[in-house]
Amino acid sequence: MKALSFDGKLRLRTDVPEPSPSPGWAVVRPRLAGICGTDLQIIEGYRGFRGILGHEFAGIVERCDDPAWAGRRVVGEINIGCGHCEACRAGLERHCLERRVLGIAGHPGCMAEFCALPLANLVAVPDGLGDERAVFVEPLSAACEILEQLPLRGRERAVVLGDGTQGILCAWVLSTVLADVTLVGHHPAKREAARWHHLKTSPGPGREERSADLVVDATGSARGLAEAVDLCRPRGTVVLKTTIAEPFDIDLAPVVRKEITLVGSRCGRFRDGLQMLHDNPDLPLERLVTSRYPLESAGEAFERARQRESLKVLLEIQ
Amino acid sequence: MKALSFDGKLRLRTDVPEPSPSPGWAVVRPRLAGICGTDLQIIEGYRGFRGILGHEFAGIVERCDDPAWAGRRVVGEINIGCGHCEACRAGLERHCLERRVLGIAGHPGCMAEFCALPLANLVAVPDGLGDERAVFVEPLSAACEILEQLPLRGRERAVVLGDGTQGILCAWVLSTVLADVTLVGHHPAKREAARWHHLKTSPGPGREERSADLVVDATGSARGLAEAVDLCRPRGTVVLKTTIAEPFDIDLAPVVRKEITLVGSRCGRFRDGLQMLHDNPDLPLERLVTSRYPLESAGEAFERARQRESLKVLLEIQ
Repeated sequence: MKALSFDGKLRLRTDVPEPSPSPGWAVVRPRLAGICGTDLQIIEGYRGFRGILGHEFAGIVERCDDPAWAGRRVVGEINIGCGHCEACRAGLERHCLERRVLGIAGHPGCMAEFCALPLANLVAVPDGLGDERAVFVEPLSAACEILEQLPLRGRERAVVLGDGTQGILCAWVLSTVLADVTLVGHHPAKREAARWHHLKTSPGPGREERSADLVVDATGSARGLAEAVDLCRPRGTVVLKTTIAEPFDIDLAPVVRKEITLVGSRCGRFRDGLQMLHDNPDLPLERLVTSRYPLESAGEAFERARQRESLKVLLEIQ
Repeated sequence: MKALSFDGKLRLRTDVPEPSPSPGWAVVRPRLAGICGTDLQIIEGYRGFRGILGHEFAGIVERCDDPAWAGRRVVGEINIGCGHCEACRAGLERHCLERRVLGIAGHPGCMAEFCALPLANLVAVPDGLGDERAVFVEPLSAACEILEQLPLRGRERAVVLGDGTQGILCAWVLSTVLADVTLVGHHPAKREAARWHHLKTSPGPGREERSADLVVDATGSARGLAEAVDLCRPRGTVVLKTTIAEPFDIDLAPVVRKEITLVGSRCGRFRDGLQMLHDNPDLPLERLVTSRYPLESAGEAFERARQRESLKVLLEIQ
């Protein structure tokens, strides 16, 4: 089958063996896949992943031993837990220490004609939800994770740093529960794409954005955290959504002096992302799609995704 | 008066004018002062402080306009808030953005024949509590701050990294509410000093200390945080008690991957520290005193405090 593989270089291969279905697993035919910041980090060396890339997809179940799933349109949770540790038993496969992660760690990804996932990871896509919205369930669920992690009361003043896809999704998700949310980003076109209901946007943190109760760093850059800590009020909360491939220099003394709570935040539950889409049918996801490329032009698509003015770049697989 | 001053160099001066009492303030005559890691950081350049050092003391009220306080034995909260901002009104002077801090920021410290503090900062020392225990109220309250910040349920498994005074105090405080606490430190004599009730000690994090629910970094060193994050279980909590004068290099990706909550923690309320001393009269504070020096030998005392095998070094002021 065709697959986009990374072996130190990005390569479109045509000789990759198709996955064969194991009991309890499905072979899925992805139709649309999204390029994520993590994919760009991986080809910079993050986590040393080698193999087929991709973890955001909407597709069709091609083969499996459960007739209830065959032929269904699905998205798929990306963490594959061991199934028997404490985390897995608590439904937190995404924190299983032995987990593999679709296209990120130890398991081939979805930028291929076929990929394999446990049936337990599949989530059916409702009929009214097109592939071009469903492909956002993974990053949207990651944004929803903030709501699962933090006990928000509605009155908090929040600032999201970073106008990339994850920053915008975090700002949208927060603005469903908070009255005062500002997205800070340098790109006028991205700020324009982010406008939704009462969400405010700003080209740079001004006086208004200081002393925020909650600051989300979704800049994807090493300086984002320092800026987030600076904007956060004493005893406030900073959510760290950015993963950086390399260690970086930071002064954490202000975290101690201001007694800030810094919360690392990663993947979320797909049911939360789907619920968010169901409750907010006017969420303007289509504005986040910068471009679509066929899998055959994946090199070009990754180049496009890497440009600073790009938001989500999608790959059409078949 | 005599005072230990830092102007880029540590100097015992004899020509410092005595503080004069303002309305609502007290002039205090410290009898015993403790040298803290922060003092050592300050003479390494932390926060650019210049002036009289010291913020841990037990002393006598020498002069004030309230006869109820005159002549009383006291300790003193070290943060002097503006008195009218939101933080001050909430009793959080230690987070007032305009605050001065005794011997740390904008206000002369207690390593002098006299120092000045607002009456509101004074806390009377109960008769049964000697100066050599009362002088620990400040660092003990800082350890108690963890209990104020975190909702602990009693079942958490905690590891404290660092066998300095603050590490040991944090371990003792945690072991008053948690059944399973381990202090990790490299110095056999310090670990021996730390033994108290069910608190466990260990020369280095072994298998038993991994996947802890709560890890306190009180190492005072840049590598402590990385080790704390490594030991902490997914979705666990790391308390950062260490302040480092210089920015340092760290890989925060594991904080995101493991969704760790990192909590900066600083000063605590003196009433909590005093309550802890009242409830635990067998807290072996005297084991933490490495040595006592007269103020005149402050240079020697700071040298001693800087040695890795030292715990608390006290200055006898009069």
